[in-house]
Amino acid sequence: MSADVLALLRDALGERVDTRPASLHDARADKSGHAATGTPLAVVHAASVDDVQATLRIATATRTPVVTRGAGTGLAGGANAGGGEIALSVRDMTRILEVRADDLIAVVEPGILNGDLNAALAAQGLWWAPDPASRAISTVGGNIATGAGGLLCAKYGVVRDAVLGVDLVLADGRLLHLGHRSVKGVTGLDLTSLIIGSEGTLGVVVGATLKLRRAVPGEVRTLAATFPDVRTAAVASAAVTASGVQPAIMELMDAASLAAVHRLLQLPAPTPGAAQLTIQTDGPAAATEAEAIADVLRGVGGTVAVAADAAEGERLLTVRRSMHPAMETLGTSLIEDVSVPRSALPAMFDEIARVEREHGLAIPTVAHAGDGNLHPNFVFAGPDVPPEVWAAADDLFRAALRLGGTLTGEHGVGVLKRRWLVDELGEDQWELQRGIQRVFDPLGIMNPGKVFAP
Amino acid sequence: MSADVLALLRDALGERVDTRPASLHDARADKSGHAATGTPLAVVHAASVDDVQATLRIATATRTPVVTRGAGTGLAGGANAGGGEIALSVRDMTRILEVRADDLIAVVEPGILNGDLNAALAAQGLWWAPDPASRAISTVGGNIATGAGGLLCAKYGVVRDAVLGVDLVLADGRLLHLGHRSVKGVTGLDLTSLIIGSEGTLGVVVGATLKLRRAVPGEVRTLAATFPDVRTAAVASAAVTASGVQPAIMELMDAASLAAVHRLLQLPAPTPGAAQLTIQTDGPAAATEAEAIADVLRGVGGTVAVAADAAEGERLLTVRRSMHPAMETLGTSLIEDVSVPRSALPAMFDEIARVEREHGLAIPTVAHAGDGNLHPNFVFAGPDVPPEVWAAADDLFRAALRLGGTLTGEHGVGVLKRRWLVDELGEDQWELQRGIQRVFDPLGIMNPGKVFAP
Repeated sequence: MSADVLALLRDALGERVDTRPASLHDARADKSGHAATGTPLAVVHAASVDDVQATLRIATATRTPVVTRGAGTGLAGGANAGGGEIALSVRDMTRILEVRADDLIAVVEPGILNGDLNAALAAQGLWWAPDPASRAISTVGGNIATGAGGLLCAKYGVVRDAVLGVDLVLADGRLLHLGHRSVKGVTGLDLTSLIIGSEGTLGVVVGATLKLRRAVPGEVRTLAATFPDVRTAAVASAAVTASGVQPAIMELMDAASLAAVHRLLQLPAPTPGAAQLTIQTDGPAAATEAEAIADVLRGVGGTVAVAADAAEGERLLTVRRSMHPAMETLGTSLIEDVSVPRSALPAMFDEIARVEREHGLAIPTVAHAGDGNLHPNFVFAGPDVPPEVWAAADDLFRAALRLGGTLTGEHGVGVLKRRWLVDELGEDQWELQRGIQRVFDPLGIMNPGKVFAP
Repeated sequence: MSADVLALLRDALGERVDTRPASLHDARADKSGHAATGTPLAVVHAASVDDVQATLRIATATRTPVVTRGAGTGLAGGANAGGGEIALSVRDMTRILEVRADDLIAVVEPGILNGDLNAALAAQGLWWAPDPASRAISTVGGNIATGAGGLLCAKYGVVRDAVLGVDLVLADGRLLHLGHRSVKGVTGLDLTSLIIGSEGTLGVVVGATLKLRRAVPGEVRTLAATFPDVRTAAVASAAVTASGVQPAIMELMDAASLAAVHRLLQLPAPTPGAAQLTIQTDGPAAATEAEAIADVLRGVGGTVAVAADAAEGERLLTVRRSMHPAMETLGTSLIEDVSVPRSALPAMFDEIARVEREHGLAIPTVAHAGDGNLHPNFVFAGPDVPPEVWAAADDLFRAALRLGGTLTGEHGVGVLKRRWLVDELGEDQWELQRGIQRVFDPLGIMNPGKVFAP
């Protein structure tokens, strides 16, 4: 059977079918450090919509599961391909098909890196706002598949706010054009939004019409503020939000995260126990907003430095963006991604401290404090999550739910969060979502075992 | 059978079941002037989620169609209830359950008027941005059901951008909580977005968690600019968009629209043939932005007046907001709602002129020029759309599609646009959407004949 599938793929796609052991090995894992069981049949490097359609027609004819992959930077195992599966990579589909400055839209292929797209747009004074910390290495298609967030979301929105349409290849190979090119559009059900964050379970995104912004004029200001402990930093961030000033970026790092990043970047060790807020303001009022925020931060006991220099600001943010590489140096991580209403951020840090205490684990945590999204990291040795880590993560997730929060703010469910999906959605909604998934994929070949797995 | 349904409803809901002839008559129509065939069995005035659930359990048990209604201000016939149907009104569910200034969210019942909600929020320095021209008389639930837009969309977004979660009662009476209270959230499929704009075909929205904004500081500036003809006005609006200055509002009225509104409001008749742009800037840079826009408008031949006075600005916008009442004085309208990429606005006005010429009809047109959404009005006598109007509307819709546009920007499909749904979506996507609708409503009792009707 596997031999038949391979033969059909090779017949249709020739050299685009890759069965080198290193390629198959890489396709099993993502940046979470977790790997699928078994080895995929092949990696298909699609270069066109036709290639994707051909692959899916063969997959449907042979009932072979398909796992769509971009750059493999996911953090929930959602694109890990295992035994008996085809890994369908769209990483080679990197073209920018159209940029319209007057209409503020771009039409792109899914494999282009977020950073590459934004470099090209910057030349025209434009940008696509979604800004995951991985933007230099993650694809636009992957950003769409996970419904990615990032650092700028409180002010500039998430992927859902920045995509007008997607082209989708269904499990049986048919191509659909969903959404529109206009600012407004309500013709029928909003399937574009349904695809965003669906993690490869509904079809393969082969193109996207993106909603752009004009580059924000003026210089940015970057603030770094240290606090004696993480709870005070969280209170400070909530105070900034409540003050009504809207920073572009507001990131929180706890003491353990700061220490790990400083080690990785060979910076001087930070003050033990101290937590840090890194805040950036932009736009015409950046300087006055930075001063207003500095006042708020000092009012809750922060030690504040303001950088007007762009290079210094970028250096401060590099500390935050190095969190994931720093965690990788310590072992494998189960990265939680809970999101709570912004006012609940201090309470959520209390809950993390409680879980650390009760479970006897260290949980280095960073947060997109401006939008209430936290990334507590459970670090351990080896590829498999130990039972005591699952237990602590379960405790932490339920605490987030009690605070009005959600399981995953931006990483997606993948395999690492699927055990909790029904707890948040409830049985009725879980079944309804599963029913919708089956309408797209009646044979169950689109990324099976992800998101909705039992 | 009808008698059984009524008896069951009365038994469960008592006085909330209304069979007065005037009530039944009103439930047949909306602000489009079109009415359903036949008379509904009853209007159920739900006052609670329990009432909605009870109604739907009876509807499912008896296989009775249910048409959900708010204030009846729709413009596509989507909430018109006809023979054998239950009209389920949520207009009495008007409570604001929660407002959180720190988290920028409000939780509301669906029957509250958009204007009433915003009046309450204004006292706390907050607002919910969706701003349909009907905001004084339309409900939040109706805004969600249609995926409403409005005047402020280019700068402040549409309903899809302003709803974090909805509570939905399914056809069988089960209650689901969709979405989340946090800024970010990607747990499972985005069913909240799927409900937005689904026009009562998936379930009944009984609550919504809304994403609020802080009131924009500073005084607004309002510009009125007249142009010798509508095409020049459209070119001017495209020039404003291309200049990079983002107005809060940019509305275009053609000569026939202006004349009709001036008559209704007993204002002096406008210059024959002249078209008008009404533009508002807001925020700290309102004054300088208004000056920059005035320069652009004069550069393309506009005669520009700038009002710094808020009352004068509101008076100028009242002219635009009176368009629908002015059309009502002329007869029944088939209001097109096409939306095109902003740069295509002048070309779309050329197409409207062509359709007027070739079909021998006058088509008074207003446009949300800032986002490319046009409302060409076909006015005629009597409740039924004459064949020649359908033919002209068909011609106009296909022109919008050729320009990269869409059938409906903000009014929805209802009954008046359903004949074109498949033309825009294609057969494959139409079937897929129908399949999704059946997952929510396997018996086909949720607003049958709307949106997806053959």
